[in-house]
Amino acid sequence: MTTNDVEAVEAANAALYSALEAGDYDAMSALWVDGPLAESAQCVHPGWMRVAGRGAILRSWALIIANTSYIQFFLTDVSVTVSGDVGVVTCAENVLTGLGRDAAGAAALGGGRIETTNLFCRTQSGWQIWHHHASPVLAPDDRDNDEGVSVDDEELG
Amino acid sequence: MTTNDVEAVEAANAALYSALEAGDYDAMSALWVDGPLAESAQCVHPGWMRVAGRGAILRSWALIIANTSYIQFFLTDVSVTVSGDVGVVTCAENVLTGLGRDAAGAAALGGGRIETTNLFCRTQSGWQIWHHHASPVLAPDDRDNDEGVSVDDEELG
Repeated sequence: MTTNDVEAVEAANAALYSALEAGDYDAMSALWVDGPLAESAQCVHPGWMRVAGRGAILRSWALIIANTSYIQFFLTDVSVTVSGDVGVVTCAENVLTGLGRDAAGAAALGGGRIETTNLFCRTQSGWQIWHHHASPVLAPDDRDNDEGVSVDDEELG
Repeated sequence: MTTNDVEAVEAANAALYSALEAGDYDAMSALWVDGPLAESAQCVHPGWMRVAGRGAILRSWALIIANTSYIQFFLTDVSVTVSGDVGVVTCAENVLTGLGRDAAGAAALGGGRIETTNLFCRTQSGWQIWHHHASPVLAPDDRDNDEGVSVDDEELG
């Protein structure tokens, strides 16, 4: 894998979140694979069943964009691997989103951590997103170091 | 992609679930990438934070195996794509698992649907699992057709 490929895939990944933050459906549409791979595209939104095929996926994003007043992503733990024509990005989406207004009229914000796997494919239009899998973190974060999840060996006994 | 590759990746995917059903840690260990790719292996269990690296991943599976008295997988919506040295499998894990015994001493079962993305890589040991991402379906299944399996918690409880 070349540095250029890795940078291009990372840029495509960043563009995905920029499109969503901007609520820009057209940008989102341009980022998803079209052509021969369009029907094999897949998307799992956090807690959802899988959505398959470009048409259904774009409708799901339109629904999300229409129902999101504010959303911001802080990506952490970003890892990019390119193998041939497939780019694999894993990252944590640390999300801050608007929840409307509370009883006193103040803007309410919600947040959470989402673990994500994004697969990109090399097409004539550049690197396009082919597979998005995002899942909510429900378990408490019991990390006692910064090298990922620590499994307590004592619990194994 | 050749038919042989697709069949080999599908077999590796099936072996992963067989190992877990059998509670066979050694089989699980043999299925996960070792060698140069071992440190880049990743695993997201349903609702968990990402676990990274072969060692931590195998400890997490040991923990799951140690705490699982019974588990059975019915895979549906299985899709296999091979691009170069990467095999992408998406499927729904329809899970039936033991929850111990209820107050009357009867065995209790739980179930649910998990959306999964499994990435395999071609190695000298054959196709090995390199990335496992499983996420719980929390949203109600509002599909009005019979494509796929709907698991009703009440029926399983």
